[in-house]
Amino acid sequence: MDDYEVEVLDDVELDEPVLVEGLPGVGHVGKLAAEHLLEELESTPVRRVYSTHFPPQVSVEDGVELASATFHAVTPEDGQDMLVLSGDHQAQDNTGHYGLVDTFLDVAEDFDVERLVALGGVPTGELIEEYDVIGAVTTEDLETELSEAGVDFRENEPAGGIVGVSGLLLGMGQRREWPAACLMGETSGYLVDPKSAQAVLEILQDVLGFEVDYASLEERADEMEEVVRKIQEMEQGAPSTPDEDLRYIG
Amino acid sequence: MDDYEVEVLDDVELDEPVLVEGLPGVGHVGKLAAEHLLEELESTPVRRVYSTHFPPQVSVEDGVELASATFHAVTPEDGQDMLVLSGDHQAQDNTGHYGLVDTFLDVAEDFDVERLVALGGVPTGELIEEYDVIGAVTTEDLETELSEAGVDFRENEPAGGIVGVSGLLLGMGQRREWPAACLMGETSGYLVDPKSAQAVLEILQDVLGFEVDYASLEERADEMEEVVRKIQEMEQGAPSTPDEDLRYIG
Amino acid sequence: MDDYEVEVLDDVELDEPVLVEGLPGVGHVGKLAAEHLLEELESTPVRRVYSTHFPPQVSVEDGVELASATFHAVTPEDGQDMLVLSGDHQAQDNTGHYGLVDTFLDVAEDFDVERLVALGGVPTGELIEEYDVIGAVTTEDLETELSEAGVDFRENEPAGGIVGVSGLLLGMGQRREWPAACLMGETSGYLVDPKSAQAVLEILQDVLGFEVDYASLEERADEMEEVVRKIQEMEQGAPSTPDEDLRYIG
Amino acid sequence: MDDYEVEVLDDVELDEPVLVEGLPGVGHVGKLAAEHLLEELESTPVRRVYSTHFPPQVSVEDGVELASATFHAVTPEDGQDMLVLSGDHQAQDNTGHYGLVDTFLDVAEDFDVERLVALGGVPTGELIEEYDVIGAVTTEDLETELSEAGVDFRENEPAGGIVGVSGLLLGMGQRREWPAACLMGETSGYLVDPKSAQAVLEILQDVLGFEVDYASLEERADEMEEVVRKIQEMEQGAPSTPDEDLRYIG
Repeated sequence: MDDYEVEVLDDVELDEPVLVEGLPGVGHVGKLAAEHLLEELESTPVRRVYSTHFPPQVSVEDGVELASATFHAVTPEDGQDMLVLSGDHQAQDNTGHYGLVDTFLDVAEDFDVERLVALGGVPTGELIEEYDVIGAVTTEDLETELSEAGVDFRENEPAGGIVGVSGLLLGMGQRREWPAACLMGETSGYLVDPKSAQAVLEILQDVLGFEVDYASLEERADEMEEVVRKIQEMEQGAPSTPDEDLRYIG
Repeated sequence: MDDYEVEVLDDVELDEPVLVEGLPGVGHVGKLAAEHLLEELESTPVRRVYSTHFPPQVSVEDGVELASATFHAVTPEDGQDMLVLSGDHQAQDNTGHYGLVDTFLDVAEDFDVERLVALGGVPTGELIEEYDVIGAVTTEDLETELSEAGVDFRENEPAGGIVGVSGLLLGMGQRREWPAACLMGETSGYLVDPKSAQAVLEILQDVLGFEVDYASLEERADEMEEVVRKIQEMEQGAPSTPDEDLRYIG
Repeated sequence: MDDYEVEVLDDVELDEPVLVEGLPGVGHVGKLAAEHLLEELESTPVRRVYSTHFPPQVSVEDGVELASATFHAVTPEDGQDMLVLSGDHQAQDNTGHYGLVDTFLDVAEDFDVERLVALGGVPTGELIEEYDVIGAVTTEDLETELSEAGVDFRENEPAGGIVGVSGLLLGMGQRREWPAACLMGETSGYLVDPKSAQAVLEILQDVLGFEVDYASLEERADEMEEVVRKIQEMEQGAPSTPDEDLRYIG
Repeated sequence: MDDYEVEVLDDVELDEPVLVEGLPGVGHVGKLAAEHLLEELESTPVRRVYSTHFPPQVSVEDGVELASATFHAVTPEDGQDMLVLSGDHQAQDNTGHYGLVDTFLDVAEDFDVERLVALGGVPTGELIEEYDVIGAVTTEDLETELSEAGVDFRENEPAGGIVGVSGLLLGMGQRREWPAACLMGETSGYLVDPKSAQAVLEILQDVLGFEVDYASLEERADEMEEVVRKIQEMEQGAPSTPDEDLRYIG
């Protein structure tokens, strides 16, 4: 097996598609957002990437699946075509991060992608009420376009930059001269956060023009609030915490 | 020395052999099971795999032996031919896990293996009375066959999937289109577990048709229970714990 | 993307330039020193080095910048030409340290560099009053020259040798038969240290002949002393520590 | 720079030399032993090995020296020719251990080495009175020869085998069909141990026939005992521990 392998699952013609990345990160914001898009819109899995830099494991949730990342072609009735990248893992070592993103960008290039947006979360360290979405971009035009859609551009935030797949997609996409943006929903950083994922998707919907329903994300957000409430009670001594409500923590 | 080296020890004709893997893991269940098979049935070591991804060490238990994994050809009077993989180590780094399993599958392919079963343990976190064996498979036919033999198929278990050699044998065997199964004996996870190894072997015997005696495993299980009893006494204050009974903990 | 990539930004003719390295290390002494030189003297960025061994991240301080190190050509009116190496990161793994320094030396060779000086700090473990600069060199002539400029050469210091980019520039520069020196300003090791950076630059100025003003470094040193004073008050219980004064700690 | 580089320093004709390895390990026993041999007998440095798998550092004890290991040709008046391997470091990562030992064995092969002995320590976990030397070998003849010289061969000791350079020299030397032995002096494991080094050298002297004086090692052993005594006093409250006596701990 090569260090990076791209398996062809299907082929779909896309028209000036935007690469939308949602791999796991802070609060699983990007992952939830990408998975919600794929639940709500019709999509076709087109490429699967395996790598010796992914963790050496298989999931057994839906038959046996070797660790991988998947590209899905999405051609919504309203809005731009998208190539959505989803998965359960990032690379497990330094050079692997670079190699995987190089591979992701090569796949995107095969589909004539010329713009990309990475979705993620930025941790605030505390539970929050108002879900802002902050941004980082490689061109002024993108900053203008995204500001108009409600993205906050704050000087020198996130402090310390952007680490991992999202950061490298920005930096390595920039080196290929593709306009690249990263949308980061504010989130506590302690929990998987459906509200933050929704805030990010609402911005993306505004920019790319697709139409999705948010009912299932809102439902998960309600369940999450219930879980948080119970954890707070637990910490204060009250006895009601059934196991299955802790599902969102991981 | 290459990253992965395969040394030819002997050659044996095998008829549609099944690859049976028993490298160290949770409770050493797979390792004990594979070693028991090799004690009870006649076998010929046919290939030895060395790797720069194995720990940099030699054992001195039986003369000097550089870290390695060994394939043994087993042609029992009753039952299917087997290619049994045993050893004392897994890979020490991420890409090494993938490379080793690729190498193992290539060796198996040389022997015309077309089916594989990985043996291991699944930790329950507590000492157990009833030793169930749970399974994960890559084909429906295998699920049917193994259910009939008494394997439990539980939705989304093990939670978090299967990590390491056993998981990769499933995932990478699947990519070679070989039916692949993993049998995991429940075990506390705290101790080396001969009872769990026996539970797994009894299933395997049912499926593959060989005949072995379990007396030595039962004896080790009795010794293990004695060790556990003494540890419990020790924790409660009683003074009787001779060193050699702690042999099973490691 | 290759393991080490050198991007050409510009080309400048340099006359027997000295490579001056200031990547992050103890007290950020070398980094502050190099950055001060680049603020005070005119320079042209000529080469940028990217690497899969740099951390997988982008900074967002000044638009999106993929982790890198930059070479600047400096041709001061007074003094020798310099090729100044600055950046925010060192390699993240062992072989990466060697590969990056090999790459840095190759770039320097392209500019006909034949002498190098690495700038850094040596931790004393306590806040200090007098800022000595200790040295390590690969030739006796360099030791003579630097002693005359005020550098302390102490037997077997730093204890444990010199680790990282600066150490390897000495060792690998020596193997290319280039006279190489490391200047290390004493520093507590707890804080970013503008005074130590100034001590090192004053020596370098004496040796290489350039003229710079130290006002901005002195200003940062004053701010740093204010921060230290506040931390000491904080530890003793007084309540005055506005966040922005902690800027120097990182 | 290649992953493993061998620099030729000099060439000496050796007659059926034995490779004697003394890199750092438990109690620095092997290192002290090799260094003592090189102090007492005339030797010529013949090869130096650099590697991207050695720590990225230089020592400044004796001018600037990039991390390396050195082969010295020793042709004593009495006794067999030796190729002594000394150094301050082992590899810093898994594959590096294997690659370095492969390189060491290739250098030894260039000098027609056909036998090797690795020197090291085995930790007992407590300060000891009687310094036994235990052994591990790849041939029965070697076991006989070394037993006669006073080496203890204990079943299954060291428990857990032999890790690092010494272990790999045994295992990889065996694969090249060279008789290989490891002599391990018992040592507490807490301190650098000149007495253990002497015990090992006395055995080696018996086997290989050279003649050395042990005065300087005995002197260091006396100093070490003084240090231990002071540490014991310190732990019991007495105030006499000048810094320079702690020199042996590192």
